[in-house]
Amino acid sequence: MASPLKEEKVFKDPVHKYIYVQDQIIWDLINTKEFQRLRRIRQLGTCFLTFHGAEHSRFSHSLGVYEVTRKIISQFERNGYEGWPQQERLLCLCAALLHDVGHGPFSHSIENTFGTHHEDWSCRIVLGDTEVNRVLRQVSSEFAAQVAEVICKTYHRQIVVSLVSSQLDADRMDYLLRDAYFTGVNYGTFDLERILRVMRPFQGHIVVKESGMHAVEDYLMSRYQMYWQVYFHPVTRSADIVLHKVFQRAKQLYQEEYAFDFMLPPLLSLFDGSLTTHEYHLLDEAFMQTVLTRWSYERDPILSDLCSRFLNRRLFKYVQLEHMDMLQIGRLKELMRSIGFDPDYYIELDFPSDLSYDVYRPGQQDEKLPILLLDHKETLTEISQKSEIVKSISGIHMGKHHLYFPDELLERHRSQLVSRDLHQLLGSE
Amino acid sequence: MASPLKEEKVFKDPVHKYIYVQDQIIWDLINTKEFQRLRRIRQLGTCFLTFHGAEHSRFSHSLGVYEVTRKIISQFERNGYEGWPQQERLLCLCAALLHDVGHGPFSHSIENTFGTHHEDWSCRIVLGDTEVNRVLRQVSSEFAAQVAEVICKTYHRQIVVSLVSSQLDADRMDYLLRDAYFTGVNYGTFDLERILRVMRPFQGHIVVKESGMHAVEDYLMSRYQMYWQVYFHPVTRSADIVLHKVFQRAKQLYQEEYAFDFMLPPLLSLFDGSLTTHEYHLLDEAFMQTVLTRWSYERDPILSDLCSRFLNRRLFKYVQLEHMDMLQIGRLKELMRSIGFDPDYYIELDFPSDLSYDVYRPGQQDEKLPILLLDHKETLTEISQKSEIVKSISGIHMGKHHLYFPDELLERHRSQLVSRDLHQLLGSE
Amino acid sequence: MASPLKEEKVFKDPVHKYIYVQDQIIWDLINTKEFQRLRRIRQLGTCFLTFHGAEHSRFSHSLGVYEVTRKIISQFERNGYEGWPQQERLLCLCAALLHDVGHGPFSHSIENTFGTHHEDWSCRIVLGDTEVNRVLRQVSSEFAAQVAEVICKTYHRQIVVSLVSSQLDADRMDYLLRDAYFTGVNYGTFDLERILRVMRPFQGHIVVKESGMHAVEDYLMSRYQMYWQVYFHPVTRSADIVLHKVFQRAKQLYQEEYAFDFMLPPLLSLFDGSLTTHEYHLLDEAFMQTVLTRWSYERDPILSDLCSRFLNRRLFKYVQLEHMDMLQIGRLKELMRSIGFDPDYYIELDFPSDLSYDVYRPGQQDEKLPILLLDHKETLTEISQKSEIVKSISGIHMGKHHLYFPDELLERHRSQLVSRDLHQLLGSE
Amino acid sequence: MASPLKEEKVFKDPVHKYIYVQDQIIWDLINTKEFQRLRRIRQLGTCFLTFHGAEHSRFSHSLGVYEVTRKIISQFERNGYEGWPQQERLLCLCAALLHDVGHGPFSHSIENTFGTHHEDWSCRIVLGDTEVNRVLRQVSSEFAAQVAEVICKTYHRQIVVSLVSSQLDADRMDYLLRDAYFTGVNYGTFDLERILRVMRPFQGHIVVKESGMHAVEDYLMSRYQMYWQVYFHPVTRSADIVLHKVFQRAKQLYQEEYAFDFMLPPLLSLFDGSLTTHEYHLLDEAFMQTVLTRWSYERDPILSDLCSRFLNRRLFKYVQLEHMDMLQIGRLKELMRSIGFDPDYYIELDFPSDLSYDVYRPGQQDEKLPILLLDHKETLTEISQKSEIVKSISGIHMGKHHLYFPDELLERHRSQLVSRDLHQLLGSE
Repeated sequence: MASPLKEEKVFKDPVHKYIYVQDQIIWDLINTKEFQRLRRIRQLGTCFLTFHGAEHSRFSHSLGVYEVTRKIISQFERNGYEGWPQQERLLCLCAALLHDVGHGPFSHSIENTFGTHHEDWSCRIVLGDTEVNRVLRQVSSEFAAQVAEVICKTYHRQIVVSLVSSQLDADRMDYLLRDAYFTGVNYGTFDLERILRVMRPFQGHIVVKESGMHAVEDYLMSRYQMYWQVYFHPVTRSADIVLHKVFQRAKQLYQEEYAFDFMLPPLLSLFDGSLTTHEYHLLDEAFMQTVLTRWSYERDPILSDLCSRFLNRRLFKYVQLEHMDMLQIGRLKELMRSIGFDPDYYIELDFPSDLSYDVYRPGQQDEKLPILLLDHKETLTEISQKSEIVKSISGIHMGKHHLYFPDELLERHRSQLVSRDLHQLLGSE
Repeated sequence: MASPLKEEKVFKDPVHKYIYVQDQIIWDLINTKEFQRLRRIRQLGTCFLTFHGAEHSRFSHSLGVYEVTRKIISQFERNGYEGWPQQERLLCLCAALLHDVGHGPFSHSIENTFGTHHEDWSCRIVLGDTEVNRVLRQVSSEFAAQVAEVICKTYHRQIVVSLVSSQLDADRMDYLLRDAYFTGVNYGTFDLERILRVMRPFQGHIVVKESGMHAVEDYLMSRYQMYWQVYFHPVTRSADIVLHKVFQRAKQLYQEEYAFDFMLPPLLSLFDGSLTTHEYHLLDEAFMQTVLTRWSYERDPILSDLCSRFLNRRLFKYVQLEHMDMLQIGRLKELMRSIGFDPDYYIELDFPSDLSYDVYRPGQQDEKLPILLLDHKETLTEISQKSEIVKSISGIHMGKHHLYFPDELLERHRSQLVSRDLHQLLGSE
Repeated sequence: MASPLKEEKVFKDPVHKYIYVQDQIIWDLINTKEFQRLRRIRQLGTCFLTFHGAEHSRFSHSLGVYEVTRKIISQFERNGYEGWPQQERLLCLCAALLHDVGHGPFSHSIENTFGTHHEDWSCRIVLGDTEVNRVLRQVSSEFAAQVAEVICKTYHRQIVVSLVSSQLDADRMDYLLRDAYFTGVNYGTFDLERILRVMRPFQGHIVVKESGMHAVEDYLMSRYQMYWQVYFHPVTRSADIVLHKVFQRAKQLYQEEYAFDFMLPPLLSLFDGSLTTHEYHLLDEAFMQTVLTRWSYERDPILSDLCSRFLNRRLFKYVQLEHMDMLQIGRLKELMRSIGFDPDYYIELDFPSDLSYDVYRPGQQDEKLPILLLDHKETLTEISQKSEIVKSISGIHMGKHHLYFPDELLERHRSQLVSRDLHQLLGSE
Repeated sequence: MASPLKEEKVFKDPVHKYIYVQDQIIWDLINTKEFQRLRRIRQLGTCFLTFHGAEHSRFSHSLGVYEVTRKIISQFERNGYEGWPQQERLLCLCAALLHDVGHGPFSHSIENTFGTHHEDWSCRIVLGDTEVNRVLRQVSSEFAAQVAEVICKTYHRQIVVSLVSSQLDADRMDYLLRDAYFTGVNYGTFDLERILRVMRPFQGHIVVKESGMHAVEDYLMSRYQMYWQVYFHPVTRSADIVLHKVFQRAKQLYQEEYAFDFMLPPLLSLFDGSLTTHEYHLLDEAFMQTVLTRWSYERDPILSDLCSRFLNRRLFKYVQLEHMDMLQIGRLKELMRSIGFDPDYYIELDFPSDLSYDVYRPGQQDEKLPILLLDHKETLTEISQKSEIVKSISGIHMGKHHLYFPDELLERHRSQLVSRDLHQLLGSE
């Protein structure tokens, strides 16, 4: 049974000024230990090593996604739009609040190495023996399952899914504004109020009034800029790579039955793929940083070196490759090995790319819901067909190849970089 | 030997837009592992449990104090003010950057319980066998000692000390703006540029042109508001109290030779007061949070309960006491004991207070350098003699008594709260 | 008959982000020619000569007052507070929108000289043969009269009056934020959302929850700072004085039947006190500036000089007087006359003062509704009894005597300033 | 002779926080009556009728252009860049400050009708018998001529011209930020500090370090958004069209020797093309608004109607034309005439277009200096060759045809709109 709070509660938020809680269920979900754990997971992983302000947590982002969703729905209700299924309000709000509840520390690096997936964990937490699940069951016996379906995008009403997950969803709207605020860049800012005002429920979708096209262009350009200037910043990528190498090395050592000086249960379960929900709860960022600190004293020189690099921000240097030459890279790896660096852990070729806005191609795997414009004749058009700007950034996998490796390689072994092409390769910055 | 960087380096900062590094020494200090460790210490301790945006670290604050100091000095130099000892520039900048380098996690709670002091640790790090010390010695053999003297306020040139530590110093100016930005409140904002422009070196002090009086009033009011609305917020106090009780309990258990399930070396040294600089380095906030997580599973019911409360934000409730009645509080403690709560760990009387601006009373212990106004006749006057506003907030120890205790006390044992006065005491909010 | 708009309309506003119009009547009032005329009246009169950003009009301020009122009422309605007379909503909104509709150009200078009063004109426009009146009569036959009563503070329901005019009203809340925004100072900012949230209708008044006391302190301090740093800035006062002298001279010339080269009907009516509503409409700031431009070529040397001074920002210089010595000022006037400056037009003693917050003293003339705090026992207390800060700024007429006169006096006639005390008087800045 | 001020002076500015004046010449120029006149010319002409905050003047913009120029030069000097001609500093600053000094009221509408050009007037004021000229001649006898050359883009050192007028100049940087601030939209914001930091003098041009490409993209997108959302807003266009029709009608009446009730000398000179510098000075926006007010009572029904429409914001309505059908428009004009509207004054086809960024095509008329990227090999590349985004907005004349006409046409004569295609044409919005 869902019921309103006797008195509206607020959280002071730097991005939305205030976050308004009006339902007992939302209040109770925020107070579960699983939701409070999000305070111990940074929103932007290693990005704080590039932008020192980026120390904000998934906790504040999750509240923000909830708040944007609440604003959208409240606008739909205030204007009495047909086509908005009012009975889904609480479901949307809960899914918005909980969609990241399964996020672990440094998600990208850990998920890559150990094959976990944060969305799966969100569903396990929603459905498992957790405080979150107990709160959701108070609404109805099927409610937790519905929330999980929205999070996994299998819920039958697409309009509900698209509020939380689409090209123009509450998740993206909050993170762009929030990440811009905390890093201090101003690329991510756009006019949230205006975008909310041009959104409409229409034939089971969320669409945008055509007069709002420029506002959406501005939002998509913000996203484009945030990707290239913040999320894919080479220093952040370097930190991700070093961290990834740490876990790769630790996994290798575990498989070789190396005796770790510091090893605690949840780590073992992470290594052998047997994590329980309870163990996952313990695996927060504070824990992982403590592990990294401890491992910087391990006997294995590669593990300890990589951990120290991460903790003390002695990351890998990078060069941008104009032409991809696998032969050259092969020779570089040989050289590295000859001077004592294991190329498996000390060199990485990186190609970050993002589709700032994807055209919808039905049937394609991992399809994303497109942004549709609604004109005064009630015709829908996919936005890139009307906007030159969006067209120019649609469907292009941008990105450049970067090669990451330790700085010392250049400094200490310059004389050994005999071949002219290698020299050129590494000297390009 | 100090030398400028070939090319100015910048850090993107949300408060000052950019932080400019122009000296090799400053750049090297930032890259020491002791300074990087400040990324793992939150600036506002437990305040993030009240204001979820307050997740910023001492690292960004320290950069900010450096930047404000750099701006003040640059203004002094640009205007060619006499009375500014130009040769002290680098000393000021290093002291500004490093003044908090000895801060530990949750300083207030830990320093209270274990008698450590962050300023002492800053000096130990500056003077000890550390990367920081090695960088400083490159300037000259006495430089590290001078930096330590500025931090400990014993340096012979008061003007240097007062830039970093006085009623109107770079430290306060940065933290008010920064804490306001990250919490999202706007009480802490004031016109930094204007205050910098009215500051003057004069007879060995930093003084303020009289025409800047209103700007200083505004700054002091910001401080007053930040103290009462943010730093002394009862929910933050509650978190501090719970954390303090955790450490008090752990120390007690240690003295009783209780066998902790989870115990690691730096903790033991903290308990017996034998921490080395190296161990202190390991004692970051990630470590302490990991300890709290683990201790929430200890056999000792008090320790595990208090840790869970902190982690899952089930803090103590508070009531404001109109009249202090120790008799009533005594009876309350008895009642608590009778229903199974140890009053040593489950009740606390709190009286936060601050002097937003202290009049200078020479000779008094812990005297703070006052704010002096310089008029066109070159006469100095202490600000509260000219400003009604400052006078009204000077020297008043404000604050109210709050009683903190677990919420359940009220809920579960209401029937036992027979005596009318106790009922009244606890029911007042 | 009042009816809602089919679709909410918005105005983009830099202070409130958007201004929302939901009623046909409000929309129609905004589109009357009397309301559009407010675009031709600057909000801060001559202040743009000190703060060049202060070029905003009464039009945007009036929309802002309307929007703050709308937000307050919407909050009252959303929370279902008893004690809020819901039927008064439209009356409040209309009075808020129109309260300044009678403002003329450079109000202070003109009202002083010609004895007009903007509040009277607001009522004349509301009640007269105007487009505004025709719109209001659509609601009901008494509606225009009610709006006029609210503006003149004689309406029988005090709660309605106090929304638009009290110590904590929509008018003040908008102008502090707006004037701070456009001048670029940040003294005027306070947390509007928070103040709105702690306001309550209670026993026919608007009161403030005690927990909001610090927010109100912050608002009152903003007001205090805005008065001293912006509204009473000596350069603004100087411009006001020069302008006042222009009108004083013109009036004198008119009475002496001087033949103006440039003279248009509404001016004549202003001079002989016979302005009609229609003529008043023509008397906007563009008109007055054109008059000043033209008069800068009049034959009368005093009138033309004063007009040139204003237009080209060659204002009077000022000195602050430590002690008021009428004897000295008398001698100064004599001196002025002897060197060819008519002291009636070239010297002025000014004493700006404001009560940032007045204690309520019932029965006193021009009494202002005080700010009352509501505690959990539903007791009301006037705020200065609980707040040290408010007490310190209550009831004190602050201000300093400034003497204004042309700069050239000092420059050209320094040798004639024989007497040592005169010299001292004028040399003090 | 140029000399520094004894003490730096500042103007409080909402966009740049403070504007710093360090030279006596700059200070004196600001205090000339020609520069003060810019306070009486709105920066955005009729845009305040769409965005009510857009009431700022050319005065504040001109100070802003000066300040951005000062910052660029100060950065060049601080970094000791070769290729920056230090002796040109004051020339740049003066040209930046004065480049708009010849702007008249509602430039677009008046320049179109009467064939005046604000750049010519700037040069006339710089070179003529003015206070500005007298100040400039204090520097040297050729200085005024040099300032005029920079403003007219004929000065021999292109680097000086390009600071004030190019695709990435101080003018554009200030107006985007300023217009965004005052309208309240946030499309115009970009990271000014960052752009300044990546600018370099190089081979007689200002170029941009390649690493700053994304920052420049962001700036160009801001420009694109400001054009489409603010400068070309259909309501602003409508106001411009109505105003243009006013002047077109007045000119026609003048040529027909109509006897105006209200007519003053500078207007006559404007009509017959004989304006002197002195008369131009009188022709400020206050004057033009007074003229419009007076003309709203003229006997000529077209002139008085158009003036009333502008003053009371009863502008023309618009429809967007999908296909340009001159036949339909012809029929519409006929219809208008038949119901009493003169189509010369009551219908207008509008096609606003802008090149947000033009590729440089040497030799083309009105060529604009392009933005060049400088890579680490010191090669220059025009930005659209490296940036997909810039390419997508380069050289495209965007824009849509809008038809403007009085609203009443539709309302009163709907029955006469017999033909289905006309109906469709006008009903489309």
